[in-house]
Amino acid sequence: MNIEHIEPKDIEKRSFEIISQELKKRQIEIPQDKAFVIKRAIHTTADFEYAQTLCFSKDAISKVAELIRQGAIIVTDTNMGLSGINKAELGKYGGKLMCFMADQDVAIEAKSRGLTRATVSMERASKLGQRIIFAIGNAPTALIELRRMYDEKIFIPDFIIGVPVGFVNVEAAKEMIMETDIPYIVNKGRKGGSNVAAAICNAILYEMKKGNI
Amino acid sequence: MNIEHIEPKDIEKRSFEIISQELKKRQIEIPQDKAFVIKRAIHTTADFEYAQTLCFSKDAISKVAELIRQGAIIVTDTNMGLSGINKAELGKYGGKLMCFMADQDVAIEAKSRGLTRATVSMERASKLGQRIIFAIGNAPTALIELRRMYDEKIFIPDFIIGVPVGFVNVEAAKEMIMETDIPYIVNKGRKGGSNVAAAICNAILYEMKKGNI
Repeated sequence: MNIEHIEPKDIEKRSFEIISQELKKRQIEIPQDKAFVIKRAIHTTADFEYAQTLCFSKDAISKVAELIRQGAIIVTDTNMGLSGINKAELGKYGGKLMCFMADQDVAIEAKSRGLTRATVSMERASKLGQRIIFAIGNAPTALIELRRMYDEKIFIPDFIIGVPVGFVNVEAAKEMIMETDIPYIVNKGRKGGSNVAAAICNAILYEMKKGNI
Repeated sequence: MNIEHIEPKDIEKRSFEIISQELKKRQIEIPQDKAFVIKRAIHTTADFEYAQTLCFSKDAISKVAELIRQGAIIVTDTNMGLSGINKAELGKYGGKLMCFMADQDVAIEAKSRGLTRATVSMERASKLGQRIIFAIGNAPTALIELRRMYDEKIFIPDFIIGVPVGFVNVEAAKEMIMETDIPYIVNKGRKGGSNVAAAICNAILYEMKKGNI
């Protein structure tokens, strides 16, 4: 197998060209206005399933962009997800990234109450009193807790990127978000990940940078 | 779809049970001594393809464990990968995590030399003069640079976890590592990711903690 000689600056462009070609070859059509998000999820995973499982509520992308312009915080459920999001781009609008998962007091509280750290982290975030985009790539319990607070009218999330990965309650937790009127981008099924959550945030940040949204 | 009520502490165990059941159902057999690594890659991605694409050089797992016991550094090619690896477990053996990708001087040098930051990062790592496990989940150019240094007898990596994801030179770069006598864990094909690189490291760290390897 030969190495294709390519300038570093052209690698990403070439990757997206290949993704577009393969979508065509596989006869998978994706909505034009969401293509940059879907393709970046594929770029991050090399998994074309995302073209068929990523779900967007009405005007989802423009809603995220608007929140970012308003200086919204992005709260993640892993520090890995947080690391993957382009902090500098977000910072241009006054926003920042937050993750409570590794806070020692979150771990202590979670243990004593028999909850997951993700559940306690969502409670913490709900008390920030700020515009929040939740970027959940790991813990279905984060989505379940956001839904509980919504049902009990304690807190309404501004936006949920709900792409946890896994085998226990992952599919159900995603459905629970899509049943509400909270704006969302959700990946149906078991797949997702902190990398996918970060990719979705970055796709939107990069498209904002280009002035396209 | 109903939520399964389960204690936080039992979620991971239940996930691995489901993975084992599904492997059986799909009639996929995996080698017993590598099962904990393969299953954790599946756990991180919900993608059963890893059962068929993860490749291990001879005694790969025991070699990683031995390096970790000797206090080896784990060098990643993304800060996302670095964030995902259990630092506390690695620290028990005196090891630490390093990533040069976000260093400003790496970016400057890469630009001026027309290289990727990953290439320059690998050069930096090669000069550390320490035992290194490379955990590459993103950049094929990192693998290509490690192979170049190996070919030119400049530097021989102790171990390579080679699981970059993507479309440009990813498959070829993985093959280039598997052709050498450098010990490796590589995921054939396009798939992988920083999450997968971290999962492989953690699988081994957790198995060491249990005293199994």
